[in-house]
Amino acid sequence: MDLKALWNLSYGVYVVSTADIDNNRSAGCIANSAMQVTNDTIAVSINHQNYTNQCIKKSRRFAISILGQGVNDNIIPIFGFQSGRDVDKFKDVDTKKIDGLDIIADSTAYIICDVDNILETETHTVFLGQIKDCGLLKNEPVMTYEYYHSVKKGKSPKTAPTYIEEAVTNTELAYKCTICGYIYKGDLTKEPDDYLCPICKQPKSVFVKI
Amino acid sequence: MDLKALWNLSYGVYVVSTADIDNNRSAGCIANSAMQVTNDTIAVSINHQNYTNQCIKKSRRFAISILGQGVNDNIIPIFGFQSGRDVDKFKDVDTKKIDGLDIIADSTAYIICDVDNILETETHTVFLGQIKDCGLLKNEPVMTYEYYHSVKKGKSPKTAPTYIEEAVTNTELAYKCTICGYIYKGDLTKEPDDYLCPICKQPKSVFVKI
Repeated sequence: MDLKALWNLSYGVYVVSTADIDNNRSAGCIANSAMQVTNDTIAVSINHQNYTNQCIKKSRRFAISILGQGVNDNIIPIFGFQSGRDVDKFKDVDTKKIDGLDIIADSTAYIICDVDNILETETHTVFLGQIKDCGLLKNEPVMTYEYYHSVKKGKSPKTAPTYIEEAVTNTELAYKCTICGYIYKGDLTKEPDDYLCPICKQPKSVFVKI
Repeated sequence: MDLKALWNLSYGVYVVSTADIDNNRSAGCIANSAMQVTNDTIAVSINHQNYTNQCIKKSRRFAISILGQGVNDNIIPIFGFQSGRDVDKFKDVDTKKIDGLDIIADSTAYIICDVDNILETETHTVFLGQIKDCGLLKNEPVMTYEYYHSVKKGKSPKTAPTYIEEAVTNTELAYKCTICGYIYKGDLTKEPDDYLCPICKQPKSVFVKI
């Protein structure tokens, strides 16, 4: 079994957002597992560990913001590598309110769904959403997962279904960011004290030697 | 509601195949709605009208062949625009038998799944499959749905979740292929008798004036 075969499946890069009713704000996370399953139904797969998961279960609604290749570089770190339990991810993000849900203003299109059905797996919830509204926001090539990894050199959060641990040879010095999994190859101690993980913008202190 | 927003979701192009137990052969169809939902689970959405749907329900197994950009031009017409009720789609196709299932030899990778769970919608079945085997077959950029439509000028079968009827202005003469939905703009009667639909390779007789 060669799991690299799974990398050949094609995905986009999305922010799935919803209302965080308990905190009277919005919650959201990066997802790439989203697809249309009928004319008016979308499926998204969200890890149980993502705070967005429990918020969707409570609000029974979600929005998908479809990111483009030119999306602001902060959007993926903000939504992919922090938890809505700890921070208000939407605090410094330009959003549009559509049907009561916050979507990312700097995305190519949005889809608003009511949850119709829920399928639980051991690690993820598959939400089936009925499309209530959708629209285009800007004309820009969409960000595919392939583009994010190959051109933007992005990484997957550990909770993503597509996450596969980076391989590092044992012969070289390397450090791993415990937040996003980014591998720093070389001697991290030689970096300045204000060095930040290039992916999730966390400080040197979150890195461990591997 | 602008349904063109849904076109911004990213997909690949796959052949989903299974055993046709009743006819002691294989069945399969084109799908683009396939995604990884957990580390070891894949979801695919198959229209009720596709013969492959009922065959998967009987065999409880399916394979995904991930098509590349260089895939033989016949594969999509064979698997996308005919029914396995009428023909043995695998008859003239180069296949590999893996774990008892036929996969397309000319694809970039394959995934073999046992059906774990089934979610019914009004028009489609979402099959959740546990990954039993997967592997790479050739190193070639994968065919995305975007590439198929923009570079290969391909169409969607009417049973695809992503199918949207082609718009034709009322002022021009046009014909529609009743098999795959391809729109011929102009006077079809001026084409030679052996004209075939460029997408599904069906004869002139299946076209209707629109």
